[in-house]
Amino acid sequence: MVDPGSTMGATIGVGVIGTGFMGKAHALAYQTAASLFSLPARPILEMVADNVRAGAERAQRSFGFRRMTEDWRELIADPKIAIVSITTPTGLHHEMALAAIAAGKHVHCEKPLAANEADARGMMEAAEAAGIATQVGFNYLKNPLLGLTREMISAGELGEITSFRGIHAEDYMADPEMPFSWRLEPAGGGVLADLGSHIIGLARFLLGPIVSVFADLETVVKERPVAPGQAERRTVTVDDIARLSVRFARGVGGTIEANWVASGRSMQLGFEVYGSKGGLAFTQERMNELLFYRAGGTRSQRGFVRIEAGPEHPPYGLFCPARGHQLGFNDLKTIEAAEFLAAIGGEPAKGPDFREGWEIQKVVDAARHSAESRSVLPVP
Amino acid sequence: MVDPGSTMGATIGVGVIGTGFMGKAHALAYQTAASLFSLPARPILEMVADNVRAGAERAQRSFGFRRMTEDWRELIADPKIAIVSITTPTGLHHEMALAAIAAGKHVHCEKPLAANEADARGMMEAAEAAGIATQVGFNYLKNPLLGLTREMISAGELGEITSFRGIHAEDYMADPEMPFSWRLEPAGGGVLADLGSHIIGLARFLLGPIVSVFADLETVVKERPVAPGQAERRTVTVDDIARLSVRFARGVGGTIEANWVASGRSMQLGFEVYGSKGGLAFTQERMNELLFYRAGGTRSQRGFVRIEAGPEHPPYGLFCPARGHQLGFNDLKTIEAAEFLAAIGGEPAKGPDFREGWEIQKVVDAARHSAESRSVLPVP
Amino acid sequence: MVDPGSTMGATIGVGVIGTGFMGKAHALAYQTAASLFSLPARPILEMVADNVRAGAERAQRSFGFRRMTEDWRELIADPKIAIVSITTPTGLHHEMALAAIAAGKHVHCEKPLAANEADARGMMEAAEAAGIATQVGFNYLKNPLLGLTREMISAGELGEITSFRGIHAEDYMADPEMPFSWRLEPAGGGVLADLGSHIIGLARFLLGPIVSVFADLETVVKERPVAPGQAERRTVTVDDIARLSVRFARGVGGTIEANWVASGRSMQLGFEVYGSKGGLAFTQERMNELLFYRAGGTRSQRGFVRIEAGPEHPPYGLFCPARGHQLGFNDLKTIEAAEFLAAIGGEPAKGPDFREGWEIQKVVDAARHSAESRSVLPVP
Amino acid sequence: MVDPGSTMGATIGVGVIGTGFMGKAHALAYQTAASLFSLPARPILEMVADNVRAGAERAQRSFGFRRMTEDWRELIADPKIAIVSITTPTGLHHEMALAAIAAGKHVHCEKPLAANEADARGMMEAAEAAGIATQVGFNYLKNPLLGLTREMISAGELGEITSFRGIHAEDYMADPEMPFSWRLEPAGGGVLADLGSHIIGLARFLLGPIVSVFADLETVVKERPVAPGQAERRTVTVDDIARLSVRFARGVGGTIEANWVASGRSMQLGFEVYGSKGGLAFTQERMNELLFYRAGGTRSQRGFVRIEAGPEHPPYGLFCPARGHQLGFNDLKTIEAAEFLAAIGGEPAKGPDFREGWEIQKVVDAARHSAESRSVLPVP
Repeated sequence: MVDPGSTMGATIGVGVIGTGFMGKAHALAYQTAASLFSLPARPILEMVADNVRAGAERAQRSFGFRRMTEDWRELIADPKIAIVSITTPTGLHHEMALAAIAAGKHVHCEKPLAANEADARGMMEAAEAAGIATQVGFNYLKNPLLGLTREMISAGELGEITSFRGIHAEDYMADPEMPFSWRLEPAGGGVLADLGSHIIGLARFLLGPIVSVFADLETVVKERPVAPGQAERRTVTVDDIARLSVRFARGVGGTIEANWVASGRSMQLGFEVYGSKGGLAFTQERMNELLFYRAGGTRSQRGFVRIEAGPEHPPYGLFCPARGHQLGFNDLKTIEAAEFLAAIGGEPAKGPDFREGWEIQKVVDAARHSAESRSVLPVP
Repeated sequence: MVDPGSTMGATIGVGVIGTGFMGKAHALAYQTAASLFSLPARPILEMVADNVRAGAERAQRSFGFRRMTEDWRELIADPKIAIVSITTPTGLHHEMALAAIAAGKHVHCEKPLAANEADARGMMEAAEAAGIATQVGFNYLKNPLLGLTREMISAGELGEITSFRGIHAEDYMADPEMPFSWRLEPAGGGVLADLGSHIIGLARFLLGPIVSVFADLETVVKERPVAPGQAERRTVTVDDIARLSVRFARGVGGTIEANWVASGRSMQLGFEVYGSKGGLAFTQERMNELLFYRAGGTRSQRGFVRIEAGPEHPPYGLFCPARGHQLGFNDLKTIEAAEFLAAIGGEPAKGPDFREGWEIQKVVDAARHSAESRSVLPVP
Repeated sequence: MVDPGSTMGATIGVGVIGTGFMGKAHALAYQTAASLFSLPARPILEMVADNVRAGAERAQRSFGFRRMTEDWRELIADPKIAIVSITTPTGLHHEMALAAIAAGKHVHCEKPLAANEADARGMMEAAEAAGIATQVGFNYLKNPLLGLTREMISAGELGEITSFRGIHAEDYMADPEMPFSWRLEPAGGGVLADLGSHIIGLARFLLGPIVSVFADLETVVKERPVAPGQAERRTVTVDDIARLSVRFARGVGGTIEANWVASGRSMQLGFEVYGSKGGLAFTQERMNELLFYRAGGTRSQRGFVRIEAGPEHPPYGLFCPARGHQLGFNDLKTIEAAEFLAAIGGEPAKGPDFREGWEIQKVVDAARHSAESRSVLPVP
Repeated sequence: MVDPGSTMGATIGVGVIGTGFMGKAHALAYQTAASLFSLPARPILEMVADNVRAGAERAQRSFGFRRMTEDWRELIADPKIAIVSITTPTGLHHEMALAAIAAGKHVHCEKPLAANEADARGMMEAAEAAGIATQVGFNYLKNPLLGLTREMISAGELGEITSFRGIHAEDYMADPEMPFSWRLEPAGGGVLADLGSHIIGLARFLLGPIVSVFADLETVVKERPVAPGQAERRTVTVDDIARLSVRFARGVGGTIEANWVASGRSMQLGFEVYGSKGGLAFTQERMNELLFYRAGGTRSQRGFVRIEAGPEHPPYGLFCPARGHQLGFNDLKTIEAAEFLAAIGGEPAKGPDFREGWEIQKVVDAARHSAESRSVLPVP
């Protein structure tokens, strides 16, 4: 990527489906990416779709979308749109993505890619057959310090890797009175799909393929209100906690936990990875810090270094020229959008793409089967 | 401020002078503010000025400014521009701001407001006489957790305040080979003006007026290269470290340190404030955390609470609906821009305005005189 | 336990077998316990045994043991000795403990209790049949903050417990050149017995019995020097990393990791435990701090409280009357010795006793079998 | 100091005056020092003195003192006592120390050395004239990590030192209902003498003599109950907060704060020291950790290293052979006692001795005069 500011006159139309948490994040990310990154084409917020008209209108006004619609199919069909962002509940991804691919659009889909492995595979195959570019919204992977982590592991700075411990714990489902939502529907996939996909994706990002898994899944809150403020209860069938013991293709073992009833935790997406020569520890709760231990050196001065994010960790410098000034959550989404735009423009794709989304889904599905059979299962 | 999305059709033209660190930050902030906040008028990036043409062109392309110029006077004179953002070196603020005020523009000026108290007063008086709105870029004050801090102090949650300890330490001047720049010119004001103004502003934001000061200022690196890579040296006359002992009008004492040669510190803008019933501690290095101790309660469970920023701390929720997901540096500038736009639109101004910038400058100047006379001096 | 200082004239003879890390810790603990705690009888360091004469002599001089011996059987047979401390390698515990029990001594044995479940059971049964008092050296359980943790869980301060995550990671075996020692012998039990027993014991201390386990064990360093500085290698058969997925009798699931090749970690004995109403997190790396989150309360002030150890957490106050002044590692051993002396004197035993040591060993053995069969196994 | 265990048959009698917090700490320290350190002579707890008989009796029983007395003069006169430990309120130090010196005893006196500079000088002069060994109880200086800090500064690892920021803040006087005690008497010296002497001593330990001072002292709680639970109030004349701006003889400036009304702080004895090539930060709240930043090196891996105390930092290894296992508060006192015993035996004294206690007192007195005159004063 060359210096920011060199974006040529070219533009590219973006359509965003959904106007919730992620819909807004996508709109903001495309807008900001155009300002901070040097891109092959400037994204234009062409259209937003929400089946609730008021939501679509509000998003249009806020982000300056040129048009809005209640019908996502209209958005996909629009000739001015080259990129379709899908930010709807997981169960809708499959249908929408296939339609967008069929229309020849590049597709930016929120995570997890699909409700199950078969759907994810269908999406991946369709995308690859169509030759369009894809991106899955695992935004945490875009943290410059995680890029550094991957590079350091890859460069052998930890020596031979020996162990991985990964966690994604939050508490937004801890309150038993938290009512049903799409995340609690079978298609939502429970915590394993919702948070587990993030940490599985991160594990793969750092250490490569996972080849086998043992999983313990459990539903802690057995029933919840059918809707906010209602007394009526509905049985929950998805898991609240997932504990995985995994083996990577490179011969390393590890554990992965996903938990959305971890009272007190709001963003404990973290890991520790150890090797024969060092260790690295991270938590998204302090996303601008990475702890690094290197064996050897002066014995009396050993310990973990708290590396602070700075312009030494691209593309941090595009956001701020000064170290330690802190990136935020939305900045990660901006990087994701910028990298997707670059990939569409012909630069090497940084992913994760639909194939990677499918690979993650395979681990999710294998974990589910493992939990049912209480046995170690290979990831196909 | 009502719900985002309700910004009406009105627009307001913004002109930004300067395209460096802060020039970009302002441009991005106005752009993002329009998307996330409900504003009385949508800001339009009307023109950018930089006396280096390439810089102006690059900024125009990156942020989509409608026009650019090499002549800041042209920008100020432009009838489509209602807000002038001044992001140039401190020594230029006075002339530019007076010109903008004379042209009837609202002025958003970077900190410190001016090179000295007389200039700052002149700017304040001109602005108040003209009745235009002003804003000084002390963006750290916009952190939602510092808003919470001020509220808690004001609500008496710490009891009677007894002490304040404030620090702004970084290390960007620690290397003796760091060459001269405008920050090292007398008009730049040294660390006392550059970083000191931030922490003095924060002290006032939390505890109100400072009425007397004792200061110890020192220049650690006595001479530096005249320019990058040059062997020739030039004597440094501004201070590298400032240590203040202050008294607040409310009868509380405290200390304030500003230091730009604090090797290892990249963003240690922090404070601890104590009262008869509790204490609060903060550092911008972990800007999404605030430590709070409340006396009393169960003795065996006492300690500092690590409060994580979340939607409970407005306007965090406009950026992200989930607690603990982290705001970043640029988000603070966005809040600053949004609040200034709201103030222009008639909502109560949250400041800091030029009057507050002048008040801060008075403390800076009193500290300089105190250091020269080695005595405690009143702040006029 | 009444106020310190009331220890009557009675004394009780202590014999310590072994003079390494733990031998010294025991000697110091009995000595200090007598000074800080009010005990039914003052312990007298009667005899120390080490099969290396110089070691025994040195320990005698250092700690003021009245006598020393090269023959541990002589120590056990000594009529002036009522308490036998066994601090030798694990493989020797069984024989020594049985002999001490047969001689009618109270036995304080280092952890893990034995090399396998059968030995542990034999020791437990002999002790219970003989009616002597026993103590196993899981000193970390004596941390006043872990006592608080157990009380808080038990009192329902976390609501219904939903999850446990426990870790004991260090790096003293990370260097592949670390030579063979008794810890690497089969009787040493590998990391699962060495560190795993600590965290399994802690899990049981906090949440009660573990009823089933799935384990993944692996040997990372396949061969090591036969002795310090020797080129000859010997194959390692014990595990370097153990990852367990467990279920507690109370219906809660959890994970437990033991790792002695975790480069950079020197004392990561920690856990996080979550419930419907709160969470607790701890690491022995900061043994004087406990993090506590309580759901509810003022939303804008939520977060984990960092509870600092103080006299509110007995028996901290016997060591120091002021909060936050820090206990150290040896203080935990002192508490262990004092509680054992109190139990011998008739106060309720706080354990862990040999029965508990055997229960822990059952989990260790079940985990080994699980790893071999790659299946979930019940803990008998 | 040679290997532990080599203490010869020689013994040395110790008498302790006072049985409160520090009296117990001294007794325990001498006892433990004998076990862990190789000493020229084994200390014998010969006699304890307390003007309250019950206190003396209790201490005798607890620590095994051979004798006890209500009359401290009897203790000083006792021919079997070679070391007199003075742990009484500050106002009594002068008389007791002079008596002990006159009797030819070595004197271990708690801090601060005296109620004022004149008394301290008298004690120092008497001790030096008598040729006896002295030790002042600034135990925090005995932290192995502070020894490392001093070595690193001295070895130039931070380059040229540029700044010091020192704090000792606690909250034991924060409650306005905390009644009068000797610490609030004029002879107690207020927070400046009580906590300030610790951080002044630490500043001198690390950076050498302080040559001038400006001080702001204030009494926050103007009156307090005359005794526990009494309604009657008495005016407080000593300071609750002291803020100093100092200059060191080496040409470095710094700040020092002492505060015993810092609600929430139990042991914030800390500092940050910066140099041209690095920085170090420490707080006694985490006394087993030292943060170290070194400029240069790989830019993307810069940050503060969290050095964990271990056997690489003597004499940590005498307490525990394993890194990260944590020393505690009492261990520092043990090191102090051991070093004093070694000095008496002829090894180089590590101090702080009475001369150093006097030097610290000179800074305290100069600070008081500075606060009265509101001017910068030289330290004589």
